Amino acid sequence: MEEMIINQSLRQAVAQPSYAEAVSVIEEQIRNKSYRKLREIAEVIPAPDLAAIFGELEDRDEPILFRLLSKEQAAEVFVELEAETRERLIASFTDRELSEILSELYIDDTVDLIEEMPAVVVKRILRSSDPADRRVINQILNYPKQSAGSVMTTEYVRFIEGIDVEAALTHIRRVAIDKETIYTCYVTDKDRHLTGVVTARELLTSELDTPLTDIMERNVLCVNTHDDREEVARVLNKYGLLAMPVVDSEGRLVGIITLDDAIDVISEESEEDFAKMAAITPTETPYLKASALSLFLSRVPWLLLLMLSSTVSGAILSGFEAALPAVLVLFVPMIMGTGGNSGGQSSVTVTRSISLAEVSFSDLPRVFWKELRVGILCGVSLGVVTFAKVMLVDRLMLGDDAITLTVAVAIALSLTVTIIVAKMIGAILPLLAKKIGLDPAVMASPLITTLVDAVSLVLYFLVSRSVLGL
Amino acid sequence: MEEMIINQSLRQAVAQPSYAEAVSVIEEQIRNKSYRKLREIAEVIPAPDLAAIFGELEDRDEPILFRLLSKEQAAEVFVELEAETRERLIASFTDRELSEILSELYIDDTVDLIEEMPAVVVKRILRSSDPADRRVINQILNYPKQSAGSVMTTEYVRFIEGIDVEAALTHIRRVAIDKETIYTCYVTDKDRHLTGVVTARELLTSELDTPLTDIMERNVLCVNTHDDREEVARVLNKYGLLAMPVVDSEGRLVGIITLDDAIDVISEESEEDFAKMAAITPTETPYLKASALSLFLSRVPWLLLLMLSSTVSGAILSGFEAALPAVLVLFVPMIMGTGGNSGGQSSVTVTRSISLAEVSFSDLPRVFWKELRVGILCGVSLGVVTFAKVMLVDRLMLGDDAITLTVAVAIALSLTVTIIVAKMIGAILPLLAKKIGLDPAVMASPLITTLVDAVSLVLYFLVSRSVLGL
Repeated sequence: MEEMIINQSLRQAVAQPSYAEAVSVIEEQIRNKSYRKLREIAEVIPAPDLAAIFGELEDRDEPILFRLLSKEQAAEVFVELEAETRERLIASFTDRELSEILSELYIDDTVDLIEEMPAVVVKRILRSSDPADRRVINQILNYPKQSAGSVMTTEYVRFIEGIDVEAALTHIRRVAIDKETIYTCYVTDKDRHLTGVVTARELLTSELDTPLTDIMERNVLCVNTHDDREEVARVLNKYGLLAMPVVDSEGRLVGIITLDDAIDVISEESEEDFAKMAAITPTETPYLKASALSLFLSRVPWLLLLMLSSTVSGAILSGFEAALPAVLVLFVPMIMGTGGNSGGQSSVTVTRSISLAEVSFSDLPRVFWKELRVGILCGVSLGVVTFAKVMLVDRLMLGDDAITLTVAVAIALSLTVTIIVAKMIGAILPLLAKKIGLDPAVMASPLITTLVDAVSLVLYFLVSRSVLGL
Repeated sequence: MEEMIINQSLRQAVAQPSYAEAVSVIEEQIRNKSYRKLREIAEVIPAPDLAAIFGELEDRDEPILFRLLSKEQAAEVFVELEAETRERLIASFTDRELSEILSELYIDDTVDLIEEMPAVVVKRILRSSDPADRRVINQILNYPKQSAGSVMTTEYVRFIEGIDVEAALTHIRRVAIDKETIYTCYVTDKDRHLTGVVTARELLTSELDTPLTDIMERNVLCVNTHDDREEVARVLNKYGLLAMPVVDSEGRLVGIITLDDAIDVISEESEEDFAKMAAITPTETPYLKASALSLFLSRVPWLLLLMLSSTVSGAILSGFEAALPAVLVLFVPMIMGTGGNSGGQSSVTVTRSISLAEVSFSDLPRVFWKELRVGILCGVSLGVVTFAKVMLVDRLMLGDDAITLTVAVAIALSLTVTIIVAKMIGAILPLLAKKIGLDPAVMASPLITTLVDAVSLVLYFLVSRSVLGL
């Protein structure tokens, strides 16, 4: 059994993890009070897996297992736990235990913890923190929510100009234990102004008596505490860095953002875009953990909004019915649907390009021209297919006499015009939204489809009327 | 001017980069043949920016600027260039220049290069590679396309068991220049069987005479050459590793996958999902670089497919019109649209959860039960709103006599049933698709909307008929 869990965590890391078996083994050991065996089992399970296992343990077993972990493992697991589990664990801790675990956490993880705990727990956390840490934590908490300052860590390796490689290596050896990364180190003057960056690779491959200033890179990419965290994450990733220094308005080094935090920011933002494009209010709770009520609340406002706006299309359709030959109604779902899909294609493409910083508002003319050509290509080709299909299938095969050549032309031409217009709307709205400070992803959502639905119907109405000479 | 470009690359890394100015400065220097100045300018521009600048230079200026770069910078920039630019540059290289640049590239980058070049260029590349590299390249090219083997690099630091920290550090110093990372090093027995992993941090903080076996982690997460690269990337990210060892079927270390490559895989896969959900064939070309024709080709097959399938809805609607009171047609866009949106919410949520490995087929009963409750909550609340709206607005305010109490009930009840069914379809289809080996993201696309459209109409028809007693 034990063997099994270990193997699972070792070789089959790639397989879909199923924790049910591990959970039942662990609960059995707890019931048998075989704590030594339990510790041996837990020891070899990687922190993210152990955190997932905690998520499925019975509440009263959580503190028992947690107390058995080594200090380091406990901290690693704690960072990965769900908010509710952390809150329950903290409630079970003595003040001394809380202090101990906090002293093992990196500052940025403590800040994350504080941000998700209720006020009374936050007070206890701050009281149990080391006074120096407390000052830094409060400072980070003061940065705006989506800023670089709010996600940075202050535990980095800093050298003062003027030392050599040997001194740098000695310094690293002494402070490494408390630093989030030692692979990228920063060089500053005495007033903390950032002047260079040096990697562990360079330190390891240089002669010991080389002055740092000879090997450090002076051309340092850095960001400001108030820069947007999403853009910082993208820059970090773009330049292939393991960490990015954060400076204040005077160019003094105040923190770093590490690649793993940047990856989290990027995936979080992209999952938010997925949610918005599906007309859902983004949440961070994983799907299976979310309650039906919270899923309902994240979905129903959008459905309601879209439903009410779609009544406009209903009103148009009903006016339409009265004024035009009944046969045209048969093609309403096809024209509305194709218009919606065409607009959706453009809006998702443009929105993602905005998110990836590939496109900005100044590209509007290029986007317009590109989508116009794509719209004409799609519109004309689908128009031709529709004309052929209406004439061959609906008129000849199904023998619908109401479909005359003029009706077929009206349908095909309406479709062509609708596709072209839908593509223009889909491409331009996200750029305009971004320009006026709205979220382009919301524009790429069914909101565009709903708008395009109404526009499609009006175009169908107008084009048919003029082709049929009514 | 020069000052400006440097500053841009330094401080304003976060700002939207605009390369137009840099491009015009560089082209001016080329025309003036001020090569020394040009080299000074290029020297301080980070590789990703310089690659973007290459993308906007005139073709004939590319080799001129490229030849001015230092060997290291040239290799860094080369890796970031667009495929066409690389092909043009290779055509301009002498065999000697090609050999030089290839010897600077990491093996995995050479493999990427080979995969995107036409056969004749590939031959030249292989001919110009070092014979030892060529053997490794051919081996990597033989792994299946989406496998861990195909994205791994063979340039990692490997220690043979039995040495101490001092010997390890000396080894690193000697080989670091050619290794993609030196921060995670691997320990094997004499037959290359992976037995442990040791980080540069541990080496730097341990006494020089410590045997490696005392500090190495024996509990090593590793993946097989044939594992799916997407799952490998996710595992690497989950466990917060900088690199993941890849072993063959006998447990021998054959390569590593580094975090930056894993990030690329993850973002590529998530952009593919965005495209599929918008009914677009995914491509890797950035939007502004893609020609109108290629955008057209990636979009039109899906539009055509969806258009043809929407004719089913048209046929249903037309049968509907003949059999039911005309007033009901007014609400068709609202019911179809809300059904589509409800199904879309569920399908996108479930599809992303599948992509993130949070949900698998075995969770089907949980997903079913969750969506059923969410569907009932959404369906009933929107049904109530619709009933109130139809009675108050359409009947009382607009005075539409055709809307009786029974009609309002028929509309509201149809909407409720449609939402519940749409949510079930949206949640279950992606899981079924995954189970039978299809792509769930395609299911989350307008395909589901089109299906739900037809189902909505049928439900509206059936429910109304039975409520109205026709």
